[in-house]
Amino acid sequence: MKQTNENLAINTIRFLAIEAVEKANSGHPGMPLGAAPMAFALWQNFIQQNPTNPQWFNRDRFVLSAGHASALLYSLLHCYGFDLSIDDLKNFRQWGSKTPGHPEVGHTPGVEATTGPLGQGIGMAVGMAMAEEFLAEQFNKPDFNIIEHYTYAIVSDGDLMEGISSESASLAGHLNLKKLICLYDDNEISIEGPTSIAFTEDTKKRFESFGWDVVELPDGNDVSAIVDAVNNAKLTDKPSLIKIRTEIGHGSPKANSESSHGSPLGKEAMQQTRNHYNWDYPEFTVPEETKDVFGQVAENGKKSESTWNTLFSNYKKKYPELGLALKKAIAKDFDPENIELPTYDVSKIATRAASGKVLNTIEPHFPTLVGGSADLAPSNNTFLNNAGIFKQDKAGKNVRFGVREHAMGAALNGMALHGGILPYGGTFLIFSDYMRASIRLSALMNTNVVYIFTHDSVGLGEDGPTHQPIEQLMSLRLIPGLSVIRPADAIETNEAWRYALSGQGPVAILLTRQGLPVMNDKKALIEDLFVKGAYPLYTTPHASEHPLQLIASGSEVSLCMEAAKELESKGIPVQVISVPCWELLKRQSKRYRSELFPSATHKIVVEAGITTGWGDIVGPCEQIGINSFGASAPGPLVMENYGFSVKNIIETAETILSKELEPVA
Amino acid sequence: MKQTNENLAINTIRFLAIEAVEKANSGHPGMPLGAAPMAFALWQNFIQQNPTNPQWFNRDRFVLSAGHASALLYSLLHCYGFDLSIDDLKNFRQWGSKTPGHPEVGHTPGVEATTGPLGQGIGMAVGMAMAEEFLAEQFNKPDFNIIEHYTYAIVSDGDLMEGISSESASLAGHLNLKKLICLYDDNEISIEGPTSIAFTEDTKKRFESFGWDVVELPDGNDVSAIVDAVNNAKLTDKPSLIKIRTEIGHGSPKANSESSHGSPLGKEAMQQTRNHYNWDYPEFTVPEETKDVFGQVAENGKKSESTWNTLFSNYKKKYPELGLALKKAIAKDFDPENIELPTYDVSKIATRAASGKVLNTIEPHFPTLVGGSADLAPSNNTFLNNAGIFKQDKAGKNVRFGVREHAMGAALNGMALHGGILPYGGTFLIFSDYMRASIRLSALMNTNVVYIFTHDSVGLGEDGPTHQPIEQLMSLRLIPGLSVIRPADAIETNEAWRYALSGQGPVAILLTRQGLPVMNDKKALIEDLFVKGAYPLYTTPHASEHPLQLIASGSEVSLCMEAAKELESKGIPVQVISVPCWELLKRQSKRYRSELFPSATHKIVVEAGITTGWGDIVGPCEQIGINSFGASAPGPLVMENYGFSVKNIIETAETILSKELEPVA
Repeated sequence: MKQTNENLAINTIRFLAIEAVEKANSGHPGMPLGAAPMAFALWQNFIQQNPTNPQWFNRDRFVLSAGHASALLYSLLHCYGFDLSIDDLKNFRQWGSKTPGHPEVGHTPGVEATTGPLGQGIGMAVGMAMAEEFLAEQFNKPDFNIIEHYTYAIVSDGDLMEGISSESASLAGHLNLKKLICLYDDNEISIEGPTSIAFTEDTKKRFESFGWDVVELPDGNDVSAIVDAVNNAKLTDKPSLIKIRTEIGHGSPKANSESSHGSPLGKEAMQQTRNHYNWDYPEFTVPEETKDVFGQVAENGKKSESTWNTLFSNYKKKYPELGLALKKAIAKDFDPENIELPTYDVSKIATRAASGKVLNTIEPHFPTLVGGSADLAPSNNTFLNNAGIFKQDKAGKNVRFGVREHAMGAALNGMALHGGILPYGGTFLIFSDYMRASIRLSALMNTNVVYIFTHDSVGLGEDGPTHQPIEQLMSLRLIPGLSVIRPADAIETNEAWRYALSGQGPVAILLTRQGLPVMNDKKALIEDLFVKGAYPLYTTPHASEHPLQLIASGSEVSLCMEAAKELESKGIPVQVISVPCWELLKRQSKRYRSELFPSATHKIVVEAGITTGWGDIVGPCEQIGINSFGASAPGPLVMENYGFSVKNIIETAETILSKELEPVA
Repeated sequence: MKQTNENLAINTIRFLAIEAVEKANSGHPGMPLGAAPMAFALWQNFIQQNPTNPQWFNRDRFVLSAGHASALLYSLLHCYGFDLSIDDLKNFRQWGSKTPGHPEVGHTPGVEATTGPLGQGIGMAVGMAMAEEFLAEQFNKPDFNIIEHYTYAIVSDGDLMEGISSESASLAGHLNLKKLICLYDDNEISIEGPTSIAFTEDTKKRFESFGWDVVELPDGNDVSAIVDAVNNAKLTDKPSLIKIRTEIGHGSPKANSESSHGSPLGKEAMQQTRNHYNWDYPEFTVPEETKDVFGQVAENGKKSESTWNTLFSNYKKKYPELGLALKKAIAKDFDPENIELPTYDVSKIATRAASGKVLNTIEPHFPTLVGGSADLAPSNNTFLNNAGIFKQDKAGKNVRFGVREHAMGAALNGMALHGGILPYGGTFLIFSDYMRASIRLSALMNTNVVYIFTHDSVGLGEDGPTHQPIEQLMSLRLIPGLSVIRPADAIETNEAWRYALSGQGPVAILLTRQGLPVMNDKKALIEDLFVKGAYPLYTTPHASEHPLQLIASGSEVSLCMEAAKELESKGIPVQVISVPCWELLKRQSKRYRSELFPSATHKIVVEAGITTGWGDIVGPCEQIGINSFGASAPGPLVMENYGFSVKNIIETAETILSKELEPVA
């Protein structure tokens, strides 16, 4: 069989991938063999990118939602000229390599999103397509289509079985994201066997019900049919799903079997696969004949960027303000130090309300602040009053995510990955559980996403235990690299936002439903010390060296302040430590931390949540917390009944002061 | 307007609900006003239950998936004769009342499932319908339809926007759960406004794509049309969705507005609503004319149970073994103490493999053990080799959940709530994040569900950080009442299962991908002490009073055993503490715990996960753990590079022994 150079290119992609898997003795050979033609169709004919500058802003975005086919992606990146060598491919899945088991953005040039947890990729692609439409509407001018690109994804049956993909697809259909084009690698095999054993829905009809344009192609090896379908998809005014029937492990003796999904083919099957494709090159070969095929695309990509650079340069001359704004947005240059944040001329305000005030105060200064809520905007105070709705108005900054927390998380990640956007999303803290997999990805990818989680404790009251977070605060703190901030009042809420705007990675801001006293008298102190993550808010004047410490976060800080006053009136010297953010505290010096929490002090931690964990932060301590589920009743009563009262703090203090300090047990 | 007694009954349901909300000054009046007719249609004409014995096993199940309409459910329960008084309704959302903000199973007679977190209810209804079909197939005999009932649910747009409902509906369609009938309260209003702002998909088409029968009814007040639709739904061989157009807040001045969703109507609007319905009864009145209407249903329910009791009694005579088996299954009388568990005649075996052996060993003795995996059965070792597949064979014990972790969690809850089933479900530990909201509900409802989470650490190797759990172990431990067990070897895996079978609530068993040494020589000790949750596995003979303690769980225990031997050879006395389960440990006496972890010992905790939390369990300690994300490379190398090596444990030990014991910082 004579191979055209195109065929040869496709087979090159296939063999680099399965050879990498074989060499690693670990990975997924089946999908690369089946999906190489569709990947080639996209990369060869459509995706505009510059391999020598993977960060070119107006590139097309490509997400491999089925991240287990990472070897396919690495193979593409190598062939199309990205900075990923044959040696990198040979180091597939090895310690420190640029080719880890699943694609990781920021780790490998050309990888747009970290994928592997199924359904996240398509959700992030939705966010990228939203970002593109928003930025295009915000910045494009006649003759200056500064932002104009497509978002492509390859998705698998596993992606489509996950609920997050339904949420995301429903949202994309609702928003008419017409520049989102997904290729569905329909190989009809999942890990346990044929998809027919668990997945018999009509996916075409499902995606049509979401408002997508769907076409079905019977032959995954028919590149020209795929190319035609993508061209047609560009003509529709809906997001597109191109469902392509493929064969997993195509050309190998394990074709059409789950045995080719997640294990190397093995030596013998490798040889038979070589025979099938008439492939007699040495391992890890990119045949000479393919170099023009791939190379032309790389050249076109470089030219595309160069043309765009000229365009953008002229744009900046004609529209200097917009040009600067876009440039700063891309660079995440938000200048948070100089942002004017709101003042609070009230004695009490819920931190969620303060957060809403911050959002509406900063909005005019952030042309690309985009966010919303999972159908709880009035409760989460996430609405931007003068900024339009993203749907009718593609430059609207308010997104109506619907009751789709998980899709919201993935979309926020996608917007942040796209760049140019400062995305935020809100829901009740309890429902962070619904989107935890996306929050974790924010942390793993270090995306600049702001999560707004309101109704942050049993203090929310009547909705009861199904809605009262208990373990969520602590459990979010456990995610490496996620800055979980629980402000004590409106001033700390300002500072939480100031930090969130500093572009240092994902932030979750946990806010109260109920009103809290505003510590206007401590404004300067808070503005100064908040970034430490934990700091002394108040200390009895002329106290001895080791006053009793009351340590708290969020709504419990003002309670401790009240208790402190009363203790002081009884002659007990006391210090109140506000701990808005563990993550920030952990970045402080050992010395700062040991001086803040001297081992010799008596300590009482007061926090309306699971107590486990504080011992590791402050050392041995007494705790007023909640280690069971909540209860339905008016908020103040619930708080009091769970021990969050001045009286209980004082009694606890008097009890521990009356005995020796004991280790935590 | 003259009211029929039926209309009067519907309005009674409406007014009890909105009066409860008004009195509490908190709650959701809109849905009860709109959905009372469909609820009445179901309860009056279809649902077979005995209000004086809500636990009657063969009753129809009813799930209010839209749990925020709890006042509607409480109103129904009162009217239909359950043990819920007018005073209980008056105490809606108050401390200690039987009428909390969202329905809680086990708390209020007649409530079948705890709902409120959206989408969970429909998912649990799917599980209940699965349980019914399974038990019917297992136990029914000609002329003895011992198990024969329907599962009904009322769902809202919020439920249907959640991804879990797509997963659940797709699974239900795949399994042809024809006795599942869901009424969709399509009021076209969500919290942020009309559903058109976020939810414009074609739900009829979507559910049809899942393999459901769907009908649309234009008038939510047309009870006879709803009754007809339910009757027709019973004739189809598919699950049914009856989409009913209603008006939120119907009859109130806030009708068809989000303002009636989640806040009391207020005095004036209440009066206008009374006027609309010609309702001039005193508050909380059940008019005399309705008592026959409601009462007849209660009488029928009592008769139904009585007829069934006779049937079951005859069944037990004719099929004594089956009768006994069903009785024991319903009573969760699994007799775990006398279960013969497998023995392990190998030096090493992965705990996931041991778990698979346990499952297949116990399966023949558990006629109602039902479970599966979210498409990872070969990796999770969850497959029962001789037990059929639940689909072709409705008595098959193996469920193919597909890549639908969240639906799996809800279905497991539903099966457990239904009763008679011992359900389990598996996935990778990392993907517990996808189903966390369901796991939490298991704990809140105390359902007897077994979660099997394999690939429990970075030790899984090449799949890398997207698949390597870091914070999942600790974060599951934070859920109140969930027993998280991480067995150290095959013997502890046996004991983990023995505990899981004891019917004391939800259990998560975390298992390794990699092989671990089998501690056959410590079998008797483990069998004796495992239930303590933490126990001394090994102590240097004739050691001083306070040997160095190496504290670990799961795969790190054998590592500590190796390190202990080496330390001992260096003359350092040492004790190894295995900590398979915090939840069990927390139930031990203070004395047991303080003797196990004396404050005077040096302690090293070794666990391949987030370290935060251990300080609260063991007191000040040195830790070898992971506080960042994982890495892609062969498992043994990853473990070693993250510090899980004998060498590192020994070095850590030598370092701390060379200095004074310091507090945790």
